[in-house]
Amino acid sequence: MASRTSSPLVHPDMNGLDLFKIMSALADETRLTIVVTLAASPGLACSGFARDVTPSVLTRHFRVLREAGVIRQHDVGTRRINTLRKEELDHRFPGLIDLVLKESIGRVAPYTTADRAC
Amino acid sequence: MASRTSSPLVHPDMNGLDLFKIMSALADETRLTIVVTLAASPGLACSGFARDVTPSVLTRHFRVLREAGVIRQHDVGTRRINTLRKEELDHRFPGLIDLVLKESIGRVAPYTTADRAC
Repeated sequence: MASRTSSPLVHPDMNGLDLFKIMSALADETRLTIVVTLAASPGLACSGFARDVTPSVLTRHFRVLREAGVIRQHDVGTRRINTLRKEELDHRFPGLIDLVLKESIGRVAPYTTADRAC
Repeated sequence: MASRTSSPLVHPDMNGLDLFKIMSALADETRLTIVVTLAASPGLACSGFARDVTPSVLTRHFRVLREAGVIRQHDVGTRRINTLRKEELDHRFPGLIDLVLKESIGRVAPYTTADRAC
């Protein structure tokens, strides 16, 4: 199936993950909510997220997360699918994502209206 | 001995520590350098740090770290002494500070000209 865009989606490889870039990416409530949602429901399309923010703002949040190495994105037709890079993050920074998910409880809730894309 | 200032230095208690505020505080190279320096040499006066930034900027960085609960500050005469709250942070967020210190290697180096105040 054709890609949604012609520009490739760049992801840092596991050894290139930067803890401080990741911490900065996660210290934002919308991005944290995206991460919490993806932890509960891998493989969601961008269209299923955060109806309270504009699409362009949401795209920026996803890009920050992707460029920090927190999520992986790939296009399926016109849909951009997102997954949390949990295994790689656990391997590179043991305990970090579990700590983040634990501390997010009571602070943010996963989007419940998310549109499962696969 | 008289306090350096009349305004009290406010510190969050251990149960009030906020992981996301801490991650945001640590995602800055000057603040990370302060933390790395304090991990190596507890009990340093502010005057011993970061001669490459202005005192007012440095004061702001220390305040961000203190308000996030990363460091504890107390005044001894005219000197403000700083310590990393490592034990409390280890208890509240196991592994986080060790991960931060490990990942800081090769990225920032502790200030070597720091002025030991005690």
